[in-house]
Amino acid sequence: MERWLEQNRAQALAGWYDFLRFPSVGTDPAHLADCQDCATWLRDWLAALGFEVEFLGAPDVPPVVYATWRSPDPAAKTAMIYGHYDVQPADPLELWDTDPWEPTLRGDRVYARGAQDDKGQVWWTLQGMRACLESGAPIPNLVLVLEGQEECGSASLIKIVAADPARFKADVLMVADTSLAPDGRPAITAGLRGVSSISFRLHGPDHDLHSGVHGGLAPNPVAELASIVASLHREDGSIAVEGFADGMREATTEEIALVMEEPFDEATYRRETGVPPVGGTRGIAPQIRGRLLPTIEVNGFHGGYAGEGGKTIIPAWAEVKLSMRTVPGQTPSRCVAALRRHMESRVKPGLRLDMIFLEPGAEALRVPLDSPAIATARQVLGEMDPRGAVVRYEGASIHVIGALAAAAGAEPLLVGFGLERDRIHAPNESFSLQQAESCLAYTAAFLKAMGGAAR
Amino acid sequence: MERWLEQNRAQALAGWYDFLRFPSVGTDPAHLADCQDCATWLRDWLAALGFEVEFLGAPDVPPVVYATWRSPDPAAKTAMIYGHYDVQPADPLELWDTDPWEPTLRGDRVYARGAQDDKGQVWWTLQGMRACLESGAPIPNLVLVLEGQEECGSASLIKIVAADPARFKADVLMVADTSLAPDGRPAITAGLRGVSSISFRLHGPDHDLHSGVHGGLAPNPVAELASIVASLHREDGSIAVEGFADGMREATTEEIALVMEEPFDEATYRRETGVPPVGGTRGIAPQIRGRLLPTIEVNGFHGGYAGEGGKTIIPAWAEVKLSMRTVPGQTPSRCVAALRRHMESRVKPGLRLDMIFLEPGAEALRVPLDSPAIATARQVLGEMDPRGAVVRYEGASIHVIGALAAAAGAEPLLVGFGLERDRIHAPNESFSLQQAESCLAYTAAFLKAMGGAAR
Repeated sequence: MERWLEQNRAQALAGWYDFLRFPSVGTDPAHLADCQDCATWLRDWLAALGFEVEFLGAPDVPPVVYATWRSPDPAAKTAMIYGHYDVQPADPLELWDTDPWEPTLRGDRVYARGAQDDKGQVWWTLQGMRACLESGAPIPNLVLVLEGQEECGSASLIKIVAADPARFKADVLMVADTSLAPDGRPAITAGLRGVSSISFRLHGPDHDLHSGVHGGLAPNPVAELASIVASLHREDGSIAVEGFADGMREATTEEIALVMEEPFDEATYRRETGVPPVGGTRGIAPQIRGRLLPTIEVNGFHGGYAGEGGKTIIPAWAEVKLSMRTVPGQTPSRCVAALRRHMESRVKPGLRLDMIFLEPGAEALRVPLDSPAIATARQVLGEMDPRGAVVRYEGASIHVIGALAAAAGAEPLLVGFGLERDRIHAPNESFSLQQAESCLAYTAAFLKAMGGAAR
Repeated sequence: MERWLEQNRAQALAGWYDFLRFPSVGTDPAHLADCQDCATWLRDWLAALGFEVEFLGAPDVPPVVYATWRSPDPAAKTAMIYGHYDVQPADPLELWDTDPWEPTLRGDRVYARGAQDDKGQVWWTLQGMRACLESGAPIPNLVLVLEGQEECGSASLIKIVAADPARFKADVLMVADTSLAPDGRPAITAGLRGVSSISFRLHGPDHDLHSGVHGGLAPNPVAELASIVASLHREDGSIAVEGFADGMREATTEEIALVMEEPFDEATYRRETGVPPVGGTRGIAPQIRGRLLPTIEVNGFHGGYAGEGGKTIIPAWAEVKLSMRTVPGQTPSRCVAALRRHMESRVKPGLRLDMIFLEPGAEALRVPLDSPAIATARQVLGEMDPRGAVVRYEGASIHVIGALAAAAGAEPLLVGFGLERDRIHAPNESFSLQQAESCLAYTAAFLKAMGGAAR
């Protein structure tokens, strides 16, 4: 593997850079052609490697790249590899040190939007797979599912999976879109939170009003919306939305033990984010708050004058974007409904609250820890790092994994190589060459182990 | 006067349009040259009329146009006319039916930014004055003070007045920047609220954080700022800021009687603004809430993602712009300090609140109702409208009036011709030809009465 990498490093890096240059922002219709170009580029690359490649989905959304490769061994098992080539918007652009669409190597790290999430992890997974194919080692049949809408809810892929689950039959579902342990140990992710998003606009006066003439008379939609948003949480930081926790199952002793096993260092957190970990419910350990409890976060709030200095108005409207992370037992659609009821019941007469965006999203995920795939991954990762792999719950979400694994009858195996310092979703996202090589090495070793195991 | 108007209407209208075409946004440094051009245009127009004109103030701010005309009668009294040629920003541009910088007549109304506030009122005041000059009728000496920073606090003029009060000696200070009574009756404004503005930015994480990874761990500055803003008012809408009301004098029986005399029609209010009058403290009459009580309003609130759909982040910061209206007895600087203490004391550890804008502003104004100028105005307005003039308190503010009147030893006389439907500070601002002609007729009649009275 090391020799393969030595011989192919320059070419693999160049391909990665090309992959990163596509501004494949899946959520933004203005970037549809970029997403299509990026998918076409992936298709050509995979076809050259011997894959049969198809685009799935409607023509007006980023295509799902669906590619298959069959082992000559009729007894071979099947590994499905899931990843996404869409990325978050790059804004605010002014905070990037270099162009987000022109990958730049500084030290050991490549900076670009998507350098890690998820183009970096996808690319180095594909390189590991390619190394296996070129070595001729026995590996399982491969089904690749590379989508372009993960960052906005995977709507297209969820439909495709529901309509034709047979396409997705596999023995394992490999996903490289998660993180290493904070101390750099390899990690198997055994759970993710669910995520749902909803946005509202609170309408007040027909037009901005003079705040001198109307102050004390007209209701102020910005102040009112701020009050409603403030009412979502109690003084102690816990969620105050009635019905939001319905059906929620308490974290198990095993889950709590697993997250508490992982050290949490406040000073490191502070250094990496600029804030102490004081979010969520007071009095609960940060590991539990960040992985095993639900959240409601404000992703954006906008209303009224935003320019220099002041402008004495009562604004006509205000808008809030909210997302929630849910845990096992919570039903996203019921959480959304509870949040909506909470918001609507607090609107002062004379104002009007409109829902302007809704992505009910997917449920939280739990992976059984006793599967053969996890045993193989543990063994492979143990050989890469003498400290062995840790099992983790992550607070983030990957919409489609639950549906994909269920429809396919495959066990999900989430092994990723991210680190907090990669700053995914933020300006100056990056991925180190070391992380990239670990991703490649793990993929190759796992596929070889699985190919050998199949004989 | 009617004959003068008939002969000069087309020319006066053309001049008004030229005046309105200058995008003289005094608060925005990008429009400094436009303000200077507008002031130069005024200077030339006044010089042609026989005025001595000077620009006062520093070269990097919109100039104060200071113009004088001396009556041949050595016994003549002096009238000072104050107005402002700066206007509010025109944004949001997309809500204007026609270009805000290209005056457009529809029906009886001229639409443009500044059509009323205050270019319209200034222009038609100047036309009334010009008609007097051209008629040769005896009128008082004239001192014109036309500034370009009223909408952002009159900082330059306040300094000039303090440095050289002698320039501003007069027997009356005429101000046309207020409104008619809602039923269209002429109105003498006997009081204004004070106004002060302050903006804050609440800093959270160094960069936007992934809301899945960090939800429940990192504090959310948008949610925190929403809570702080919500804490400014009590459940009943009253102001909850400790120390804000220090020194505030309760409204007098006379003030209450005057504001309650004016009918307030909820249906009309709703039709004109799109909202019922449910702002301010519940259980208090709208006339009192809008004129005689202080307010704290949110003029703008911005943080996090504002684009289409969703973005799952914990934003790095949030910003709020607040303005307050104050009443007699309140000291603006103390109100600002109280508000600041309230905000700062509620910041969660790990977050940082920066003040990013401050305009401590001016105190509330009360005009004595028994002055000779008010008696003359009452008589003149009574001749224009058989219903007679009403005396009003307005909720709005004109920063410099108190300082200008005090330094000059002049009695302030606030007679304006605005109506709610003019939509000042909002898109589609307008002023009707009928209001314009009333403004002209009143100015001419008052100056003639004052000129006659001087003999």
